[in-house]
Amino acid sequence: QDQSKFNKQADKLQQHLKNDFFSLSFLVQGLADFRPERVAGHNGFNINYGRFKLSGIFDNKFGYNLQATMLKSPSVIDANIYFKPISNLSIKTGLFKSPFTHEYLTGASSILFIDRSVVVNQLGTKRQLGIQVDTYTSNQRFRFTGGVFNGNNYGGNNNADGHFQYIGRAEAYLGQNSTSTAKVGVSISHEQKDTPATSGNLQSTFQGKQTLIGSYFSINQNKLLLDGEIIYGWMESPNDQEYNPYGYYFTAGYDVTPVSQLLLRWDSFSGESLTGDMDSIVAGFNYVPNKFTKLKLNYILPTDRAAEYSNFLAAIQIGF
Amino acid sequence: QDQSKFNKQADKLQQHLKNDFFSLSFLVQGLADFRPERVAGHNGFNINYGRFKLSGIFDNKFGYNLQATMLKSPSVIDANIYFKPISNLSIKTGLFKSPFTHEYLTGASSILFIDRSVVVNQLGTKRQLGIQVDTYTSNQRFRFTGGVFNGNNYGGNNNADGHFQYIGRAEAYLGQNSTSTAKVGVSISHEQKDTPATSGNLQSTFQGKQTLIGSYFSINQNKLLLDGEIIYGWMESPNDQEYNPYGYYFTAGYDVTPVSQLLLRWDSFSGESLTGDMDSIVAGFNYVPNKFTKLKLNYILPTDRAAEYSNFLAAIQIGF
Amino acid sequence: QDQSKFNKQADKLQQHLKNDFFSLSFLVQGLADFRPERVAGHNGFNINYGRFKLSGIFDNKFGYNLQATMLKSPSVIDANIYFKPISNLSIKTGLFKSPFTHEYLTGASSILFIDRSVVVNQLGTKRQLGIQVDTYTSNQRFRFTGGVFNGNNYGGNNNADGHFQYIGRAEAYLGQNSTSTAKVGVSISHEQKDTPATSGNLQSTFQGKQTLIGSYFSINQNKLLLDGEIIYGWMESPNDQEYNPYGYYFTAGYDVTPVSQLLLRWDSFSGESLTGDMDSIVAGFNYVPNKFTKLKLNYILPTDRAAEYSNFLAAIQIGF
Repeated sequence: QDQSKFNKQADKLQQHLKNDFFSLSFLVQGLADFRPERVAGHNGFNINYGRFKLSGIFDNKFGYNLQATMLKSPSVIDANIYFKPISNLSIKTGLFKSPFTHEYLTGASSILFIDRSVVVNQLGTKRQLGIQVDTYTSNQRFRFTGGVFNGNNYGGNNNADGHFQYIGRAEAYLGQNSTSTAKVGVSISHEQKDTPATSGNLQSTFQGKQTLIGSYFSINQNKLLLDGEIIYGWMESPNDQEYNPYGYYFTAGYDVTPVSQLLLRWDSFSGESLTGDMDSIVAGFNYVPNKFTKLKLNYILPTDRAAEYSNFLAAIQIGF
Repeated sequence: QDQSKFNKQADKLQQHLKNDFFSLSFLVQGLADFRPERVAGHNGFNINYGRFKLSGIFDNKFGYNLQATMLKSPSVIDANIYFKPISNLSIKTGLFKSPFTHEYLTGASSILFIDRSVVVNQLGTKRQLGIQVDTYTSNQRFRFTGGVFNGNNYGGNNNADGHFQYIGRAEAYLGQNSTSTAKVGVSISHEQKDTPATSGNLQSTFQGKQTLIGSYFSINQNKLLLDGEIIYGWMESPNDQEYNPYGYYFTAGYDVTPVSQLLLRWDSFSGESLTGDMDSIVAGFNYVPNKFTKLKLNYILPTDRAAEYSNFLAAIQIGF
Repeated sequence: QDQSKFNKQADKLQQHLKNDFFSLSFLVQGLADFRPERVAGHNGFNINYGRFKLSGIFDNKFGYNLQATMLKSPSVIDANIYFKPISNLSIKTGLFKSPFTHEYLTGASSILFIDRSVVVNQLGTKRQLGIQVDTYTSNQRFRFTGGVFNGNNYGGNNNADGHFQYIGRAEAYLGQNSTSTAKVGVSISHEQKDTPATSGNLQSTFQGKQTLIGSYFSINQNKLLLDGEIIYGWMESPNDQEYNPYGYYFTAGYDVTPVSQLLLRWDSFSGESLTGDMDSIVAGFNYVPNKFTKLKLNYILPTDRAAEYSNFLAAIQIGF
């Protein structure tokens, strides 16, 4: 009964703010972060997300996304336009998530834990300025996506070095039915960077030639969820030093009730002298009291240092 | 008749943009600032406010606010989530106005003068990242609010020093009827600051231990308005120097016509060597031609320096 | 038939998001920029525009505009309020486009080429904080606009030097009928600048006394379009050096089909030792597949340097 009130509001909201050609969304998430011992920062409160998004598509052909955050500057997150000449083909240009990792391409309101895995944060290719082609086979079983990007994120709203980043991905969808879905994918990224980014993750601040290969899977069966991802990098600095940072995560999840979920993750990353290693186990509990609200509790236990460096995180989000 | 046109538009706007679960608001205010002699700055034009806000509550239980300004960066003003398990109790987390001063908690479009009083600007606790509990007695006569905050405003979206700011407030509502309302309140704030904020008001840039006590009242009776507030501070620097900055304002207002109001304020602040003293009389005239527009004229006469340093301000705002 | 689908969506969108008193608009434009040889920057992708706008007018009397970009900070573009006591008179204050050039006052989604002309970018007066009066003769044949502005754009949200910029413009509309329109105008701007802007165009970064005179015309007849503009400047530096930068453009356009247009422009600017000269021919092709989408291709051939410095630009925009 309580749930049906929310459903009615959801329907009204849907009619009011969501059309094919215009949809307004927003996401706010507050966070409390506590650690008995800290390497950096202080215990306290943060805002994770404070965003709004305009999106839509005209006549199922010409679509757009404009997403902005209130928390940093410039505030742009997504600003792109896409064209679908036929239903299985989409050509997109502007600023958007490059087609590389499974977890990074999962939306901020839908990721399993409060933070993404270390390997995705360190080696994943993020939002880029560029152009991509995205296509499905007619039976929707296979998807191929490839694009050319500036390679330096939104940095300065231009290409920092005249070189481009090339990214390609193949995905297969197996056994999509009412109680189970399965997805596997493999992706590759290559770029030459003459100008390292002043900020960002390892792969965007490194200078030199870098190739990344990633592979991932995601399985939902009844109440069970399994997903995992591995990214391996070949990075060659201008003085011919080669580095091979890599990492992976593996997640198991179980729906304890229809509105709550327990999660466990092995999260591992090897920075190979470019940045620190990180190994940890993450336990998570998600509670979804209604369609618009989610509570997340995470406990991160480092397995490569003392338990005092454990991290307790509590986040609450509202969004639609 | 003219007024009824605006009322019709207001109703349409209300239906169109204001729902329980989603409400869009905005506020724009332009300002002209002239002084015969100036200590700083130049005569000219400014924009005071250029903001929009998304807010709502689902099933009267899960609410949110997201407010952003176009005039500074990061643009976040409010980003918070609240939960009302019962109607007299609200638990709020994220970024929001800490429960301390009467005038600071009055919204930007509703404050009496163009600027807030000096004591509120200097010693008032402002927006903070944290968590608060807000509760009313069942007869709605008394309200108690208390919270724990990072204590360094939005600065860096984290806690600058690991210490927290504790704020509590008690409010009483007396004689609420159709022609008169009265409110009195008392509030206290305590924090230890190891890292002074690089910008903000006196209480946020001071380093050391600081306790603030405030008290205020606000009375509306027929066409008459009276309000006032006093804040007193105990500030102890790390080398055991103690300072007691304090200040107060007292305002009298009279509704000359249903759409215009005359105001007079005594505004006093003593910075006790931490910052300059300030004593002035502010005369104000507000004109509200319709529900969406307000014109404000302010004349500020300093009583502690020559009349040439008087300040003439004219502001016009549109918002809903 | 395809076009009628878009028209239906346009009508629904109009009803949904566009009222007299509240209208939401947005504009996203992605750009690819390639040159065989470059003086500065690198070939790659950019975002030109990522904006949203709230605007409206209550009872045809009190209006507002709030426009923000996601691409820079502070994000404010327009923040103004206007009052129309009678239909032929408007008084506007806040931040808005100062009434000087024809092309700069043409909206971002409607300008003919991807970039505005060099003379308008270098000598045109841009958005300013101030106040203006805008009036039409009763037959709508003549329009006079004049205003007083801070003179340093939005820089710091204040007047940088206490001097004001005075701008006036007269426009005449000739032969407005169903197949042809014609407009001519002349404008003047004068200011004394004690503090040069740290960024902006030539006229805003110059220090000293400066007077600018501009004149323009714009003719649409059947499928033909002709427009042009000239701006001439008198700039006197504090050490009595005088400079006379000036420039002009002339454009011819032809509607090849109802949804596509060919354009040719002569674009010339003489910086007179204050900044570089620039002479080029710009060829453009615009394609408008529907009311919300526009594709622009531009080829810029410099006539004062080698053809290798030619610039190829492709832009796609979605907006409403």
